[in-house]
Amino acid sequence: MAERAVSIREVGPRDGLQREAPLELARRLALIEGLAGCGFPDMEVAAFVSERAVPSMAGAAAVVAGLPSDADCTWWALVPNLIGAERAIAAGVNHLSVTVSASVEYSLRNVKMTIEESVAQAMAIIDAAPVVDVVISCAFGSPYESAIDRQAVASLVGRFTEAGASVTLADTTGVASPRTVAELISITGSDVGLHLHDTRGTALVNAYAALDLGVARFDTSVGGLGGSPFADDAGGNLATEDFVYLLGEMGTPSGVDLPRLLEVSGELREWLGRPLASRVAETELRRHGSN
Amino acid sequence: MAERAVSIREVGPRDGLQREAPLELARRLALIEGLAGCGFPDMEVAAFVSERAVPSMAGAAAVVAGLPSDADCTWWALVPNLIGAERAIAAGVNHLSVTVSASVEYSLRNVKMTIEESVAQAMAIIDAAPVVDVVISCAFGSPYESAIDRQAVASLVGRFTEAGASVTLADTTGVASPRTVAELISITGSDVGLHLHDTRGTALVNAYAALDLGVARFDTSVGGLGGSPFADDAGGNLATEDFVYLLGEMGTPSGVDLPRLLEVSGELREWLGRPLASRVAETELRRHGSN
Repeated sequence: MAERAVSIREVGPRDGLQREAPLELARRLALIEGLAGCGFPDMEVAAFVSERAVPSMAGAAAVVAGLPSDADCTWWALVPNLIGAERAIAAGVNHLSVTVSASVEYSLRNVKMTIEESVAQAMAIIDAAPVVDVVISCAFGSPYESAIDRQAVASLVGRFTEAGASVTLADTTGVASPRTVAELISITGSDVGLHLHDTRGTALVNAYAALDLGVARFDTSVGGLGGSPFADDAGGNLATEDFVYLLGEMGTPSGVDLPRLLEVSGELREWLGRPLASRVAETELRRHGSN
Repeated sequence: MAERAVSIREVGPRDGLQREAPLELARRLALIEGLAGCGFPDMEVAAFVSERAVPSMAGAAAVVAGLPSDADCTWWALVPNLIGAERAIAAGVNHLSVTVSASVEYSLRNVKMTIEESVAQAMAIIDAAPVVDVVISCAFGSPYESAIDRQAVASLVGRFTEAGASVTLADTTGVASPRTVAELISITGSDVGLHLHDTRGTALVNAYAALDLGVARFDTSVGGLGGSPFADDAGGNLATEDFVYLLGEMGTPSGVDLPRLLEVSGELREWLGRPLASRVAETELRRHGSN
Protein backbone atom coordinates (compact mmCIF):
# COMPACT_ATOMS: atom_id res chain seq x y z
CA MET A 1 0.00 0.00 0.00
CA ALA A 2 1.47 3.33 -1.03
CA GLU A 3 2.07 6.04 1.54
CA ARG A 4 -0.48 8.79 1.10
CA ALA A 5 -0.92 12.26 2.48
CA VAL A 6 -3.74 12.92 0.06
CA SER A 7 -6.39 10.48 -1.03
CA ILE A 8 -7.77 10.80 -4.55
CA ARG A 9 -11.10 9.36 -5.63
CA GLU A 10 -10.85 9.04 -9.39
CA VAL A 11 -14.26 9.90 -10.82
CA GLY A 12 -13.42 9.70 -14.53
CA PRO A 13 -15.42 6.53 -15.22
CA ARG A 14 -18.49 8.22 -13.70
CA ASP A 15 -18.47 12.03 -13.67
CA GLY A 16 -15.87 12.07 -16.44
CA LEU A 17 -17.85 10.00 -18.91
CA GLN A 18 -21.23 11.34 -17.89
CA ARG A 19 -21.38 14.04 -20.56
CA GLU A 20 -19.71 11.99 -23.28
CA ALA A 21 -21.35 9.92 -25.95
CA PRO A 22 -21.78 6.46 -24.41
CA LEU A 23 -18.58 4.40 -24.52
CA GLU A 24 -19.00 0.66 -25.03
CA LEU A 25 -18.79 -1.47 -21.92
CA ALA A 26 -15.43 -3.02 -22.80
CA ARG A 27 -13.84 0.42 -23.06
CA ARG A 28 -15.37 1.60 -19.82
CA LEU A 29 -14.00 -1.49 -18.12
CA ALA A 30 -10.59 -1.08 -19.77
CA LEU A 31 -10.51 2.50 -18.52
CA ILE A 32 -11.38 1.39 -15.00
CA GLU A 33 -8.79 -1.39 -15.09
CA GLY A 34 -6.12 0.97 -16.41
CA LEU A 35 -6.92 3.51 -13.71
CA ALA A 36 -7.01 0.84 -11.01
CA GLY A 37 -3.41 0.02 -11.90
CA CYS A 38 -2.33 3.58 -11.10
CA GLY A 39 -2.79 3.34 -7.35
CA PHE A 40 -6.00 5.25 -6.63
CA PRO A 41 -7.42 4.28 -3.25
CA ASP A 42 -10.96 5.06 -4.44
CA MET A 43 -12.73 5.19 -7.76
CA GLU A 44 -16.27 6.10 -8.76
CA VAL A 45 -17.13 3.69 -11.52
CA ALA A 46 -20.84 3.83 -12.17
CA ALA A 47 -24.09 5.71 -11.59
CA PHE A 48 -27.32 3.86 -10.94
CA VAL A 49 -29.39 6.58 -12.53
CA SER A 50 -32.08 6.68 -15.20
CA GLU A 51 -30.56 5.28 -18.38
CA ARG A 52 -32.87 7.51 -20.36
CA ALA A 53 -31.78 10.66 -18.57
CA VAL A 54 -28.06 9.85 -18.68
CA PRO A 55 -27.43 7.35 -21.51
CA SER A 56 -23.67 7.41 -20.99
CA MET A 57 -24.18 5.80 -17.58
CA ALA A 58 -26.39 2.96 -18.81
CA GLY A 59 -25.37 -0.56 -17.85
CA ALA A 60 -24.15 0.25 -14.34
CA ALA A 61 -24.69 -3.31 -13.10
CA ALA A 62 -22.68 -4.69 -16.01
CA VAL A 63 -19.85 -2.29 -15.19
CA VAL A 64 -19.86 -3.47 -11.58
CA ALA A 65 -19.96 -7.12 -12.66
CA GLY A 66 -16.90 -6.53 -14.83
CA LEU A 67 -14.73 -4.76 -12.24
CA PRO A 68 -11.26 -6.26 -11.77
CA SER A 69 -11.43 -8.50 -8.72
CA ASP A 70 -7.77 -8.13 -7.78
CA ALA A 71 -7.61 -4.32 -7.60
CA ASP A 72 -6.69 -2.68 -4.31
CA CYS A 73 -9.25 0.04 -4.88
CA THR A 74 -12.55 0.92 -3.26
CA TRP A 75 -15.34 1.10 -5.85
CA TRP A 76 -17.99 3.77 -5.54
CA ALA A 77 -21.27 4.23 -7.35
CA LEU A 78 -23.40 7.34 -7.51
CA VAL A 79 -27.03 6.77 -6.63
CA PRO A 80 -29.83 9.33 -7.02
CA ASN A 81 -32.32 7.76 -4.64
CA LEU A 82 -33.15 4.73 -2.49
CA ILE A 83 -34.09 2.61 -5.49
CA GLY A 84 -30.74 3.39 -7.08
CA ALA A 85 -29.04 2.51 -3.80
CA GLU A 86 -30.83 -0.83 -3.70
CA ARG A 87 -29.82 -1.53 -7.32
CA ALA A 88 -26.20 -0.63 -6.55
CA ILE A 89 -26.05 -2.80 -3.44
CA ALA A 90 -27.68 -5.68 -5.31
CA ALA A 91 -25.04 -5.27 -8.03
CA GLY A 92 -22.34 -5.56 -5.38
CA VAL A 93 -21.22 -1.99 -4.62
CA ASN A 94 -21.03 -1.09 -0.95
CA HIS A 95 -19.74 2.47 -1.21
CA LEU A 96 -22.36 4.87 -2.45
CA SER A 97 -22.21 8.55 -3.17
CA VAL A 98 -25.40 10.54 -3.08
CA THR A 99 -25.85 14.15 -4.02
CA VAL A 100 -27.70 16.77 -2.03
CA SER A 101 -27.68 20.27 -3.44
CA ALA A 102 -26.95 23.30 -1.31
CA SER A 103 -28.82 25.37 -3.88
CA VAL A 104 -32.58 25.58 -3.44
CA GLU A 105 -33.08 26.33 -7.13
CA TYR A 106 -30.66 23.71 -8.42
CA SER A 107 -32.36 21.12 -6.26
CA LEU A 108 -35.87 22.04 -7.39
CA ARG A 109 -34.95 22.20 -11.05
CA ASN A 110 -32.74 19.15 -11.32
CA VAL A 111 -34.02 16.66 -8.78
CA LYS A 112 -37.49 18.18 -8.30
CA MET A 113 -37.11 18.13 -4.53
CA THR A 114 -36.64 20.72 -1.85
CA ILE A 115 -33.33 20.51 -0.02
CA GLU A 116 -35.06 18.96 2.99
CA GLU A 117 -36.73 16.29 0.83
CA SER A 118 -33.34 15.57 -0.64
CA VAL A 119 -31.77 15.37 2.83
CA ALA A 120 -34.46 12.92 3.95
CA GLN A 121 -33.72 10.74 0.95
CA ALA A 122 -29.96 10.84 1.64
CA MET A 123 -30.64 9.87 5.25
CA ALA A 124 -32.64 6.88 4.07
CA ILE A 125 -29.74 5.82 1.88
CA ILE A 126 -27.32 6.27 4.78
CA ASP A 127 -29.56 3.92 6.77
CA ALA A 128 -29.68 1.36 3.97
CA ALA A 129 -26.11 1.27 2.68
CA PRO A 130 -22.85 0.16 4.28
CA VAL A 131 -20.85 3.31 3.40
CA VAL A 132 -22.19 6.60 2.09
CA ASP A 133 -20.47 9.77 0.99
CA VAL A 134 -22.84 12.70 0.65
CA VAL A 135 -21.74 15.07 -2.08
CA ILE A 136 -23.10 18.54 -1.40
CA SER A 137 -23.41 20.08 -4.85
CA CYS A 138 -23.27 23.84 -5.47
CA ALA A 139 -21.60 24.14 -2.05
CA PHE A 140 -19.73 27.27 -3.16
CA GLY A 141 -22.34 28.79 -5.42
CA SER A 142 -24.85 28.00 -8.13
CA PRO A 143 -25.97 29.52 -11.40
CA TYR A 144 -29.28 30.46 -9.73
CA GLU A 145 -28.50 32.19 -6.47
CA SER A 146 -26.22 35.12 -5.81
CA ALA A 147 -24.73 33.34 -2.83
CA ILE A 148 -25.04 30.07 -0.96
CA ASP A 149 -25.47 30.32 2.81
CA ARG A 150 -22.25 28.88 4.26
CA GLN A 151 -23.83 28.18 7.63
CA ALA A 152 -26.52 26.15 5.89
CA VAL A 153 -23.85 24.12 4.08
CA ALA A 154 -21.96 23.58 7.33
CA SER A 155 -25.18 22.50 9.00
CA LEU A 156 -25.73 19.87 6.27
CA VAL A 157 -22.15 18.65 6.76
CA GLY A 158 -22.84 18.30 10.48
CA ARG A 159 -26.09 16.42 10.01
CA PHE A 160 -24.67 13.92 7.52
CA THR A 161 -21.51 13.37 9.54
CA GLU A 162 -23.59 12.73 12.62
CA ALA A 163 -25.64 10.23 10.63
CA GLY A 164 -22.44 8.33 9.84
CA ALA A 165 -21.68 9.51 6.32
CA SER A 166 -18.63 11.25 5.02
CA VAL A 167 -19.19 14.49 3.14
CA THR A 168 -17.74 15.93 -0.05
CA LEU A 169 -18.20 19.58 -0.94
CA ALA A 170 -18.71 20.02 -4.67
CA ASP A 171 -18.06 23.16 -6.69
CA THR A 172 -20.45 21.99 -9.38
CA THR A 173 -20.17 25.03 -11.62
CA GLY A 174 -16.59 26.09 -10.86
CA VAL A 175 -17.34 29.29 -8.98
CA ALA A 176 -15.21 28.63 -5.89
CA SER A 177 -12.07 30.61 -5.18
CA PRO A 178 -9.31 30.09 -2.64
CA ARG A 179 -11.11 32.68 -0.52
CA THR A 180 -14.50 30.96 -0.53
CA VAL A 181 -12.83 27.57 -0.05
CA ALA A 182 -11.08 28.93 3.04
CA GLU A 183 -14.26 30.56 4.33
CA LEU A 184 -16.31 27.38 4.03
CA ILE A 185 -13.59 25.03 5.34
CA SER A 186 -13.12 27.31 8.34
CA ILE A 187 -16.72 26.49 9.31
CA THR A 188 -16.98 22.84 8.27
CA GLY A 189 -13.50 21.79 9.33
CA SER A 190 -11.07 20.03 7.02
CA ASP A 191 -12.50 16.51 7.34
CA VAL A 192 -14.39 16.82 4.07
CA GLY A 193 -13.69 15.81 0.53
CA LEU A 194 -13.52 18.36 -2.27
CA HIS A 195 -14.96 17.89 -5.72
CA LEU A 196 -13.81 20.75 -7.93
CA HIS A 197 -14.63 21.84 -11.45
CA ASP A 198 -12.40 23.89 -13.69
CA THR A 199 -14.98 26.07 -15.43
CA ARG A 200 -12.98 29.21 -14.70
CA GLY A 201 -9.49 27.71 -14.48
CA THR A 202 -9.51 27.72 -10.68
CA ALA A 203 -9.81 24.00 -9.85
CA LEU A 204 -6.11 23.48 -9.18
CA VAL A 205 -5.61 26.70 -7.23
CA ASN A 206 -8.66 25.84 -5.11
CA ALA A 207 -7.26 22.37 -4.44
CA TYR A 208 -3.92 23.92 -3.50
CA ALA A 209 -5.60 26.33 -1.09
CA ALA A 210 -7.59 23.44 0.43
CA LEU A 211 -4.46 21.30 0.86
CA ASP A 212 -2.98 24.15 2.82
CA LEU A 213 -6.02 24.04 5.12
CA GLY A 214 -5.59 20.33 5.75
CA VAL A 215 -8.15 18.91 3.33
CA ALA A 216 -6.89 15.48 2.30
CA ARG A 217 -9.64 13.96 0.12
CA PHE A 218 -10.22 15.03 -3.46
CA ASP A 219 -12.33 13.86 -6.38
CA THR A 220 -10.56 14.26 -9.72
CA SER A 221 -11.17 12.99 -13.22
CA VAL A 222 -8.64 11.57 -15.66
CA GLY A 223 -8.09 14.03 -18.50
CA GLY A 224 -10.16 16.68 -16.74
CA LEU A 225 -13.29 15.19 -18.29
CA GLY A 226 -16.72 15.72 -16.94
CA GLY A 227 -19.30 18.14 -15.76
CA SER A 228 -22.91 17.98 -14.73
CA PRO A 229 -25.36 17.29 -17.53
CA PHE A 230 -27.75 19.54 -15.61
CA ALA A 231 -25.55 22.64 -15.38
CA ASP A 232 -24.75 24.29 -18.67
CA ASP A 233 -21.73 26.14 -17.45
CA ALA A 234 -20.18 23.24 -15.59
CA GLY A 235 -16.65 22.78 -16.89
CA GLY A 236 -14.69 19.59 -16.54
CA ASN A 237 -13.48 18.16 -13.26
CA LEU A 238 -10.12 18.96 -11.75
CA ALA A 239 -7.82 16.91 -13.98
CA THR A 240 -6.25 14.00 -12.13
CA GLU A 241 -2.98 14.29 -14.03
CA ASP A 242 -2.60 17.98 -13.16
CA PHE A 243 -3.37 17.42 -9.49
CA VAL A 244 -1.09 14.38 -9.19
CA TYR A 245 1.68 16.33 -10.93
CA LEU A 246 1.24 19.27 -8.55
CA LEU A 247 1.25 16.97 -5.51
CA GLY A 248 4.45 15.38 -6.80
CA GLU A 249 6.08 18.79 -7.21
CA MET A 250 4.99 19.72 -3.69
CA GLY A 251 6.42 16.50 -2.25
CA THR A 252 2.95 15.41 -1.11
CA PRO A 253 2.46 11.67 -1.69
CA SER A 254 -0.81 10.56 -3.32
CA GLY A 255 0.23 7.00 -4.13
CA VAL A 256 -0.75 7.58 -7.77
CA ASP A 257 1.75 6.58 -10.44
CA LEU A 258 1.77 9.50 -12.90
CA PRO A 259 3.60 7.76 -15.78
CA ARG A 260 1.12 4.88 -15.67
CA LEU A 261 -1.76 7.33 -15.46
CA LEU A 262 -0.47 9.13 -18.56
CA GLU A 263 -0.64 5.86 -20.48
CA VAL A 264 -4.32 5.66 -19.57
CA SER A 265 -4.76 9.32 -20.54
CA GLY A 266 -3.21 8.56 -23.93
CA GLU A 267 -5.65 5.74 -24.60
CA LEU A 268 -8.57 7.84 -23.45
CA ARG A 269 -7.47 10.63 -25.75
CA GLU A 270 -7.45 8.24 -28.68
CA TRP A 271 -10.90 6.91 -27.86
CA LEU A 272 -12.34 10.38 -27.54
CA GLY A 273 -10.50 11.68 -30.58
CA ARG A 274 -9.81 15.09 -29.12
CA PRO A 275 -7.32 16.81 -26.82
CA LEU A 276 -7.85 16.43 -23.09
CA ALA A 277 -8.41 19.34 -20.72
CA SER A 278 -5.51 18.12 -18.58
CA ARG A 279 -2.52 20.30 -19.44
CA VAL A 280 -0.07 17.83 -17.96
CA ALA A 281 -1.52 15.05 -20.11
CA GLU A 282 -1.48 17.18 -23.26
CA THR A 283 2.09 18.35 -22.67
CA GLU A 284 3.44 14.93 -21.79
CA LEU A 285 1.58 13.09 -24.54
CA ARG A 286 2.85 15.63 -27.08
CA ARG A 287 6.40 15.26 -25.80
CA HIS A 288 6.20 11.54 -26.23
CA GLY A 289 5.06 11.77 -29.79
CA SER A 290 1.42 10.86 -29.27
CA ASN A 291 0.79 14.08 -31.28
CA MET B 1 -6.05 55.94 -11.91
CA ALA B 2 -7.39 52.66 -10.53
CA GLU B 3 -6.29 51.41 -7.14
CA ARG B 4 -3.96 48.47 -7.57
CA ALA B 5 -2.45 45.91 -5.25
CA VAL B 6 -1.14 43.94 -8.20
CA SER B 7 0.29 45.34 -11.38
CA ILE B 8 -0.24 43.37 -14.60
CA ARG B 9 1.92 43.81 -17.67
CA GLU B 10 -0.20 42.52 -20.53
CA VAL B 11 2.14 40.74 -22.95
CA GLY B 12 -0.43 39.40 -25.42
CA PRO B 13 0.54 41.73 -28.29
CA ARG B 14 4.14 40.51 -27.95
CA ASP B 15 4.60 37.11 -26.29
CA GLY B 16 1.02 36.18 -27.07
CA LEU B 17 1.22 36.77 -30.81
CA GLN B 18 4.81 35.59 -31.13
CA ARG B 19 3.95 32.01 -32.09
CA GLU B 20 0.91 32.89 -34.17
CA ALA B 21 0.73 33.41 -37.90
CA PRO B 22 1.45 37.12 -38.43
CA LEU B 23 -1.59 39.31 -37.81
CA GLU B 24 -1.97 42.37 -39.97
CA LEU B 25 -0.83 45.66 -38.45
CA ALA B 26 -4.36 47.06 -38.12
CA ARG B 27 -5.44 44.05 -36.06
CA ARG B 28 -2.38 44.20 -33.84
CA LEU B 29 -3.10 47.88 -33.21
CA ALA B 30 -6.78 47.19 -32.60
CA LEU B 31 -5.80 44.52 -30.07
CA ILE B 32 -3.45 46.94 -28.31
CA GLU B 33 -6.06 49.69 -28.27
CA GLY B 34 -8.70 47.32 -26.96
CA LEU B 35 -6.39 46.11 -24.21
CA ALA B 36 -5.30 49.64 -23.35
CA GLY B 37 -8.94 50.42 -22.60
CA CYS B 38 -9.02 47.71 -19.93
CA GLY B 39 -6.79 49.46 -17.43
CA PHE B 40 -3.45 47.67 -17.64
CA PRO B 41 -0.68 49.83 -16.22
CA ASP B 42 1.86 48.18 -18.54
CA MET B 43 1.75 46.44 -21.89
CA GLU B 44 4.42 44.78 -24.00
CA VAL B 45 3.49 45.67 -27.54
CA ALA B 46 6.39 44.80 -29.81
CA ALA B 47 9.70 42.98 -30.18
CA PHE B 48 12.58 44.54 -32.08
CA VAL B 49 13.91 41.17 -33.16
CA SER B 50 14.90 39.63 -36.46
CA GLU B 51 11.85 39.70 -38.71
CA ARG B 52 13.14 36.59 -40.43
CA ALA B 53 13.46 34.64 -37.17
CA VAL B 54 10.11 35.78 -35.76
CA PRO B 55 7.87 36.89 -38.66
CA SER B 56 4.90 37.50 -36.37
CA MET B 57 6.82 40.33 -34.72
CA ALA B 58 7.77 42.11 -37.98
CA GLY B 59 6.94 45.79 -38.22
CA ALA B 60 7.74 46.71 -34.62
CA ALA B 61 8.39 50.37 -35.47
CA ALA B 62 5.04 50.59 -37.27
CA VAL B 63 3.30 49.13 -34.21
CA VAL B 64 4.95 51.74 -32.00
CA ALA B 65 4.06 54.53 -34.43
CA GLY B 66 0.43 53.44 -34.30
CA LEU B 67 0.05 53.23 -30.51
CA PRO B 68 -2.88 55.17 -29.07
CA SER B 69 -1.50 58.44 -27.80
CA ASP B 70 -4.12 58.96 -25.11
CA ALA B 71 -3.72 55.63 -23.28
CA ASP B 72 -2.70 55.69 -19.63
CA CYS B 73 -0.43 52.71 -20.16
CA THR B 74 3.33 52.22 -20.21
CA TRP B 75 4.45 50.61 -23.47
CA TRP B 76 7.21 48.02 -23.40
CA ALA B 77 9.21 46.45 -26.20
CA LEU B 78 11.33 43.35 -26.06
CA VAL B 79 14.82 43.79 -27.43
CA PRO B 80 17.32 41.00 -28.02
CA ASN B 81 20.48 43.14 -28.12
CA LEU B 82 21.87 46.68 -28.19
CA ILE B 83 20.95 47.19 -31.85
CA GLY B 84 17.38 46.19 -31.05
CA ALA B 85 17.43 48.58 -28.10
CA GLU B 86 18.59 51.41 -30.33
CA ARG B 87 15.87 50.63 -32.87
CA ALA B 88 13.24 50.57 -30.12
CA ILE B 89 14.38 53.86 -28.62
CA ALA B 90 14.52 55.46 -32.08
CA ALA B 91 10.96 54.24 -32.65
CA GLY B 92 9.91 55.94 -29.43
CA VAL B 93 9.75 53.19 -26.76
CA ASN B 94 11.51 53.97 -23.52
CA HIS B 95 10.70 50.84 -21.56
CA LEU B 96 12.64 47.84 -22.76
CA SER B 97 12.60 44.26 -21.68
CA VAL B 98 15.63 42.13 -22.34
CA THR B 99 15.99 38.44 -21.73
CA VAL B 100 18.89 36.71 -20.03
CA SER B 101 18.59 32.97 -19.59
CA ALA B 102 19.37 31.27 -16.32
CA SER B 103 19.96 28.09 -18.31
CA VAL B 104 23.45 27.64 -19.76
CA GLU B 105 22.16 25.34 -22.49
CA TYR B 106 19.12 27.41 -23.38
CA SER B 107 21.33 30.46 -23.67
CA LEU B 108 23.90 28.74 -25.88
CA ARG B 109 21.31 27.14 -28.13
CA ASN B 110 18.91 30.03 -28.54
CA VAL B 111 20.98 33.19 -28.32
CA LYS B 112 24.38 31.62 -29.05
CA MET B 113 25.90 33.31 -26.01
CA THR B 114 27.15 32.19 -22.64
CA ILE B 115 25.17 33.55 -19.70
CA GLU B 116 27.96 36.03 -18.93
CA GLU B 117 28.01 37.29 -22.54
CA SER B 118 24.27 37.71 -22.27
CA VAL B 119 24.61 39.57 -18.96
CA ALA B 120 27.19 41.91 -20.47
CA GLN B 121 24.80 42.69 -23.33
CA ALA B 122 21.94 43.33 -20.90
CA MET B 123 24.18 45.65 -18.90
CA ALA B 124 24.97 47.62 -22.08
CA ILE B 125 21.25 47.96 -22.74
CA ILE B 126 20.65 49.08 -19.15
CA ASP B 127 23.27 51.78 -19.75
CA ALA B 128 21.69 52.86 -23.03
CA ALA B 129 17.98 52.81 -22.28
CA PRO B 130 15.81 54.87 -19.93
CA VAL B 131 14.05 51.93 -18.25
CA VAL B 132 14.96 48.26 -18.50
CA ASP B 133 13.31 45.14 -17.12
CA VAL B 134 15.54 42.09 -17.33
CA VAL B 135 13.53 38.93 -17.83
CA ILE B 136 15.44 35.95 -16.51
CA SER B 137 14.21 33.07 -18.61
CA CYS B 138 14.22 29.46 -17.41
CA ALA B 139 14.52 30.84 -13.87
CA PHE B 140 12.74 27.78 -12.46
CA GLY B 141 14.05 25.13 -14.81
CA SER B 142 14.79 24.39 -18.44
CA PRO B 143 14.30 21.50 -20.84
CA TYR B 144 18.08 20.97 -20.82
CA GLU B 145 19.25 20.90 -17.23
CA SER B 146 17.97 18.81 -14.34
CA ALA B 147 17.94 21.87 -12.10
CA ILE B 148 18.73 25.57 -12.24
CA ASP B 149 21.02 26.91 -9.50
CA ARG B 150 18.79 29.20 -7.42
CA GLN B 151 21.72 31.08 -5.93
CA ALA B 152 22.93 31.84 -9.45
CA VAL B 153 19.48 33.19 -10.37
CA ALA B 154 19.40 35.29 -7.20
CA SER B 155 22.88 36.59 -7.99
CA LEU B 156 21.67 37.71 -11.45
CA VAL B 157 18.70 39.44 -9.83
CA GLY B 158 21.08 41.26 -7.49
CA ARG B 159 23.41 42.37 -10.26
CA PHE B 160 20.65 43.71 -12.50
CA THR B 161 18.86 45.44 -9.64
CA GLU B 162 22.10 47.08 -8.60
CA ALA B 163 22.58 48.22 -12.20
CA GLY B 164 19.21 49.99 -12.03
CA ALA B 165 16.95 47.51 -13.81
CA SER B 166 13.89 45.75 -12.53
CA VAL B 167 13.85 41.98 -12.87
CA THR B 168 11.19 39.51 -13.94
CA LEU B 169 11.57 35.79 -13.28
CA ALA B 170 10.23 33.74 -16.18
CA ASP B 171 9.06 30.16 -16.05
CA THR B 172 9.64 29.77 -19.77
CA THR B 173 8.65 26.13 -20.04
CA GLY B 174 6.09 25.93 -17.23
CA VAL B 175 8.04 23.77 -14.80
CA ALA B 176 7.67 25.93 -11.70
CA SER B 177 5.55 24.85 -8.76
CA PRO B 178 4.38 26.74 -5.67
CA ARG B 179 7.29 25.09 -3.86
CA THR B 180 10.00 26.23 -6.31
CA VAL B 181 8.38 29.67 -6.56
CA ALA B 182 8.57 29.97 -2.77
CA GLU B 183 12.16 28.69 -2.68
CA LEU B 184 13.37 31.16 -5.29
CA ILE B 185 11.42 34.15 -3.94
CA SER B 186 12.77 33.44 -0.46
CA ILE B 187 16.25 34.16 -1.87
CA THR B 188 15.49 36.96 -4.35
CA GLY B 189 12.91 38.77 -2.25
CA SER B 190 9.47 39.65 -3.55
CA ASP B 191 10.43 42.77 -5.51
CA VAL B 192 10.46 40.88 -8.78
CA GLY B 193 7.98 40.35 -11.56
CA LEU B 194 6.76 36.89 -12.50
CA HIS B 195 6.22 35.66 -16.04
CA LEU B 196 4.49 32.29 -15.92
CA HIS B 197 3.59 29.72 -18.52
CA ASP B 198 0.81 27.19 -18.23
CA THR B 199 2.43 24.18 -19.89
CA ARG B 200 1.45 21.92 -16.99
CA GLY B 201 -1.60 23.78 -15.76
CA THR B 202 0.29 25.41 -12.89
CA ALA B 203 0.50 29.06 -13.99
CA LEU B 204 -2.42 30.24 -11.87
CA VAL B 205 -1.48 28.26 -8.78
CA ASN B 206 2.08 29.56 -9.04
CA ALA B 207 0.79 33.12 -9.33
CA TYR B 208 -1.42 32.55 -6.30
CA ALA B 209 1.52 31.22 -4.27
CA ALA B 210 3.62 34.20 -5.35
CA LEU B 211 0.89 36.68 -4.38
CA ASP B 212 0.93 35.14 -0.94
CA LEU B 213 4.68 35.87 -0.77
CA GLY B 214 4.16 39.52 -1.66
CA VAL B 215 4.98 39.44 -5.37
CA ALA B 216 2.97 42.22 -6.98
CA ARG B 217 4.07 42.32 -10.63
CA PHE B 218 2.92 39.77 -13.18
CA ASP B 219 3.15 39.31 -16.94
CA THR B 220 0.03 37.74 -18.41
CA SER B 221 -1.34 37.30 -21.90
CA VAL B 222 -4.87 37.84 -23.11
CA GLY B 223 -6.45 34.49 -23.94
CA GLY B 224 -3.49 32.62 -22.51
CA LEU B 225 -1.76 32.93 -25.87
CA GLY B 226 1.93 32.61 -26.32
CA GLY B 227 5.02 30.64 -25.66
CA SER B 228 8.62 30.77 -26.72
CA PRO B 229 9.26 29.92 -30.36
CA PHE B 230 12.54 28.41 -29.12
CA ALA B 231 11.13 26.02 -26.54
CA ASP B 232 9.02 23.22 -27.93
CA ASP B 233 7.25 22.46 -24.73
CA ALA B 234 6.49 26.03 -23.77
CA GLY B 235 2.76 26.30 -23.21
CA GLY B 236 0.87 29.55 -23.35
CA ASN B 237 1.26 32.38 -20.88
CA LEU B 238 -0.78 32.71 -17.74
CA ALA B 239 -4.12 33.87 -19.15
CA THR B 240 -4.90 37.46 -18.22
CA GLU B 241 -8.63 36.77 -17.90
CA ASP B 242 -8.06 33.89 -15.48
CA PHE B 243 -5.66 35.89 -13.33
CA VAL B 244 -7.85 39.00 -13.27
CA TYR B 245 -10.84 36.83 -12.38
CA LEU B 246 -8.93 35.17 -9.53
CA LEU B 247 -7.72 38.53 -8.22
CA GLY B 248 -11.29 39.78 -8.29
CA GLU B 249 -12.48 36.75 -6.33
CA MET B 250 -9.68 37.29 -3.81
CA GLY B 251 -10.59 40.96 -3.39
CA THR B 252 -7.18 42.02 -4.71
CA PRO B 253 -7.52 45.05 -6.98
CA SER B 254 -5.64 44.96 -10.31
CA GLY B 255 -7.36 47.93 -11.94
CA VAL B 256 -8.26 45.73 -14.92
CA ASP B 257 -11.84 45.79 -16.15
CA LEU B 258 -12.73 42.12 -16.75
CA PRO B 259 -15.95 42.66 -18.74
CA ARG B 260 -14.11 45.00 -21.12
CA LEU B 261 -11.23 42.55 -21.35
CA LEU B 262 -13.65 39.76 -22.29
CA GLU B 263 -14.86 41.86 -25.22
CA VAL B 264 -11.27 41.99 -26.44
CA SER B 265 -10.91 38.24 -25.84
CA GLY B 266 -14.00 37.65 -27.95
CA GLU B 267 -12.59 39.62 -30.89
CA LEU B 268 -9.24 37.89 -30.57
CA ARG B 269 -10.99 34.52 -30.56
CA GLU B 270 -12.75 35.41 -33.79
CA TRP B 271 -9.53 36.53 -35.46
CA LEU B 272 -7.72 33.38 -34.45
CA GLY B 273 -10.66 31.13 -35.27
CA ARG B 274 -10.12 28.79 -32.35
CA PRO B 275 -10.91 28.54 -28.65
CA LEU B 276 -8.66 30.41 -26.25
CA ALA B 277 -6.64 28.76 -23.51
CA SER B 278 -8.24 31.11 -20.96
CA ARG B 279 -10.97 29.14 -19.20
CA VAL B 280 -12.65 32.28 -17.93
CA ALA B 281 -12.79 33.67 -21.46
CA GLU B 282 -14.14 30.43 -22.91
CA THR B 283 -16.76 30.06 -20.20
CA GLU B 284 -17.90 33.67 -20.34
CA LEU B 285 -17.90 33.91 -24.13
CA ARG B 286 -19.94 30.70 -24.34
CA ARG B 287 -22.39 31.98 -21.75
CA HIS B 288 -22.90 35.12 -23.76
CA GLY B 289 -23.63 33.27 -26.93
CA SER B 290 -20.36 33.91 -28.71
CA ASN B 291 -20.32 30.10 -29.15
